[in-house]
Amino acid sequence: MGNSAFSRSIDLNVDAGEQFDVSRMESDRLLLSCVSSANIACGYHAGNAQVMRRTVEWCAELGVAVGAHPGLPDPHGFGRREMAVTASEVEADVLYQIGALKAFASAAGVLLAHVKPHGALYHMASRRRELAEAIVRAAKAIDPGLAIVGPSGSELLLAATDAGLRTVEEGFVDRAYMSDGSLAPRSMRGAVHANEREAIEQALAIVERRSVRALDGGMAEVKAQTLCLHGDTPGAASFAAALKRSLQERGYAVRSPQ
Amino acid sequence: MGNSAFSRSIDLNVDAGEQFDVSRMESDRLLLSCVSSANIACGYHAGNAQVMRRTVEWCAELGVAVGAHPGLPDPHGFGRREMAVTASEVEADVLYQIGALKAFASAAGVLLAHVKPHGALYHMASRRRELAEAIVRAAKAIDPGLAIVGPSGSELLLAATDAGLRTVEEGFVDRAYMSDGSLAPRSMRGAVHANEREAIEQALAIVERRSVRALDGGMAEVKAQTLCLHGDTPGAASFAAALKRSLQERGYAVRSPQ
Amino acid sequence: MGNSAFSRSIDLNVDAGEQFDVSRMESDRLLLSCVSSANIACGYHAGNAQVMRRTVEWCAELGVAVGAHPGLPDPHGFGRREMAVTASEVEADVLYQIGALKAFASAAGVLLAHVKPHGALYHMASRRRELAEAIVRAAKAIDPGLAIVGPSGSELLLAATDAGLRTVEEGFVDRAYMSDGSLAPRSMRGAVHANEREAIEQALAIVERRSVRALDGGMAEVKAQTLCLHGDTPGAASFAAALKRSLQERGYAVRSPQ
Amino acid sequence: MGNSAFSRSIDLNVDAGEQFDVSRMESDRLLLSCVSSANIACGYHAGNAQVMRRTVEWCAELGVAVGAHPGLPDPHGFGRREMAVTASEVEADVLYQIGALKAFASAAGVLLAHVKPHGALYHMASRRRELAEAIVRAAKAIDPGLAIVGPSGSELLLAATDAGLRTVEEGFVDRAYMSDGSLAPRSMRGAVHANEREAIEQALAIVERRSVRALDGGMAEVKAQTLCLHGDTPGAASFAAALKRSLQERGYAVRSPQ
Repeated sequence: MGNSAFSRSIDLNVDAGEQFDVSRMESDRLLLSCVSSANIACGYHAGNAQVMRRTVEWCAELGVAVGAHPGLPDPHGFGRREMAVTASEVEADVLYQIGALKAFASAAGVLLAHVKPHGALYHMASRRRELAEAIVRAAKAIDPGLAIVGPSGSELLLAATDAGLRTVEEGFVDRAYMSDGSLAPRSMRGAVHANEREAIEQALAIVERRSVRALDGGMAEVKAQTLCLHGDTPGAASFAAALKRSLQERGYAVRSPQ
Repeated sequence: MGNSAFSRSIDLNVDAGEQFDVSRMESDRLLLSCVSSANIACGYHAGNAQVMRRTVEWCAELGVAVGAHPGLPDPHGFGRREMAVTASEVEADVLYQIGALKAFASAAGVLLAHVKPHGALYHMASRRRELAEAIVRAAKAIDPGLAIVGPSGSELLLAATDAGLRTVEEGFVDRAYMSDGSLAPRSMRGAVHANEREAIEQALAIVERRSVRALDGGMAEVKAQTLCLHGDTPGAASFAAALKRSLQERGYAVRSPQ
Repeated sequence: MGNSAFSRSIDLNVDAGEQFDVSRMESDRLLLSCVSSANIACGYHAGNAQVMRRTVEWCAELGVAVGAHPGLPDPHGFGRREMAVTASEVEADVLYQIGALKAFASAAGVLLAHVKPHGALYHMASRRRELAEAIVRAAKAIDPGLAIVGPSGSELLLAATDAGLRTVEEGFVDRAYMSDGSLAPRSMRGAVHANEREAIEQALAIVERRSVRALDGGMAEVKAQTLCLHGDTPGAASFAAALKRSLQERGYAVRSPQ
Repeated sequence: MGNSAFSRSIDLNVDAGEQFDVSRMESDRLLLSCVSSANIACGYHAGNAQVMRRTVEWCAELGVAVGAHPGLPDPHGFGRREMAVTASEVEADVLYQIGALKAFASAAGVLLAHVKPHGALYHMASRRRELAEAIVRAAKAIDPGLAIVGPSGSELLLAATDAGLRTVEEGFVDRAYMSDGSLAPRSMRGAVHANEREAIEQALAIVERRSVRALDGGMAEVKAQTLCLHGDTPGAASFAAALKRSLQERGYAVRSPQ
């Protein structure tokens, strides 16, 4: 069933290229074949030049949109630990990372489509305007056509809109939401959906009703043009395939925005 | 005396941005004010995002041509140790580094002008065709307008010419040559010119006669559109200023090619 | 069946701690439960402080001998690429790495038992006496009780013996040998044993007869007190368990030397 | 004038080995010749194996006490930026760094004398008990004879005392104090003493009266067995020499505790 048969569409995105050894990447390829957008690590929190090139080439081959996934300079902590970085430092670090990835996109003959900050940087830029603006400035300096991916209503997307960049709102399928629309903290029981069924139901609820059952009762509004899958679990690829099938059965094409 | 008064010109290039700490860069600024081209480290053998941005901004302000100075992934050895890298690895590493630097040039509103490999990579690419081609492919994929800097007659420049890229032949002012046109090995007595006078005389001999006295007797032909200064010695900036003055007194404008 | 029932013994060693992310280590634990010695990456070619501590703690818990696995400073190439390092540089790099690992052994209350260089450093130190001596000097400065692991007859083991350090000769179970006792180059057809049966047979041939069928015809002498397993393949742990069982059935205890 | 002529003594400590290139270290040697203790970077925020070995060898030659200067894993930020690290991560990172440095001390035949955390880690461990305890646990696991250097009354020194480790209280000569004994924030006018005279006066006030003029009026009590000099300024060595002379003229031997 070609995508042209669908009247509606949704993007599935996954973090990719987070290995440090190009010989241990095979699981990534399978995963990429089930999604429409990839956020590719740029050598700061994970990845390196060989891994980035291979990942971009697979995206080109599979028709997956190539995005930069810049992180904090913390490979020991996989970019998950907040650091007291200034907006100026973030801007330079993000320029560096997007620029590096863009070179591989150029070499593979594909466009760089989007930027989605990784881990702690994603969370910091969602809350703090000056960091959001630093990321947006870096992206715009490299290519004003880049889309910025982040949570709906976040400082990150507001800053992107103000700077005239396209935004892509992101929802999560395997994480429970609170009624205020935030993600339930991982420390809460039930914060991570334990089985595929729940995650797929949440995905369908997001795309069909923009609303999911909240962990603290009631409903949470979740606006999303892209759904984030986590690729670092053993069954990630089979789950991605199942989710894609479910979405297609409901009439949704899985494809990247624009 | 503006450059327009000169009928002939020569480029002076210097390696820059080789610190790891943006607060220890002041000596670089003075040096940059005396040259016409900078080869900026890209985070592999030295440098990082903050240092790269600062260096590019200084170049923009001072009218110095911005070039990428990609090296081997060996910060401990400052990129000076040869490594058993494949052409494919070199291509990916050079794509990464040039791409990263280009982002800072874009953000500063200047063009990326040239690529000059650093240290062991410079020497390996001068001798080995497949590594030369890997560097040239990377540069061309990013921007076919980039010039490649290397020794006259090297595999690096031959590969660049074959790929349709501009080349810039480089001569050295503080290193003695052998009669076959190669640099005298550092282990030889007299291989490094001990005083400014000798270095300036060699510079003038290169630009005026394309020929210098060889360390093993006779003369060496040295074709160069750019002269390399070394920036990591205490008197580097004052030497650069003296050399620039000497060249200008002989009627040479100090400016980057193109 | 306790080890005390066996009249003869053999050591099984495996490289461990080669991840960069402590949350992706589970497969290592299973593998460690099947061997008697671990060579733990020390942060140069792979690993980091969190990963090293966890690995050492598992070794302590499982009774596996803790060894240092120092590599070249080349995380991009996983330490597999030769570099033009001097003996002095190797000595400093190996001091650093063994010292770092020893701290985790001290904290876990276990002895550091051996040193086995990784990848390109293993091969370089097997051939080149000055690099072998550099490694041995570093090990001895930290603890003269450390054993050095390497190929029988290698410069590495000769240097260790000359310096008064214990040596452990290593054999490979999944790599074919040439009749001169060297490993068959990976480029040769049949250089890597494709199935478990072949590998187990080679292991038994080494321990029982010190002799294996050579890939170029005839027999190769292989003297080994330890057998190296490769841990980075999917079925590594189940193979290790099968090999251990086969050895025990032939009356060999699997335990570390000393 | 030998130290034996003095009835009282004070330690002068300086951070050392913070380069990344062993060929750019000459200024360190001169500085080391004027102090009694060195805090040597361990490869996280700065330094590497070659630099560490050279620095330890100079200390051995000059009779300077060798200390570890572990930092956060943030070379881009020189370890000055706070990171959201856990106590467990700090313990592993500090074990790694002290262990690595101790190997060079062993190879040079000197004792490792003390541990002083660097930059953001110093400040975090001064305030937060669980991080202080992590550092103290790491030090004690390696050698219970190690002294811990930190601000008087800090959580770091309290944790060390509780664990039975020796402590060394540190004062600053070129930073102004507040009347509560804390350092004046760098943002305040006058927070850094602009000239040598002021810094030397403050040093003498600390050693002779345990009390300095506070920037916010009144006096600040400063208890210190060691005074910290900053080595990364151009005139650092000449200032260190002048300070040492002034202290000796007042009858103080400059020597490390214990």
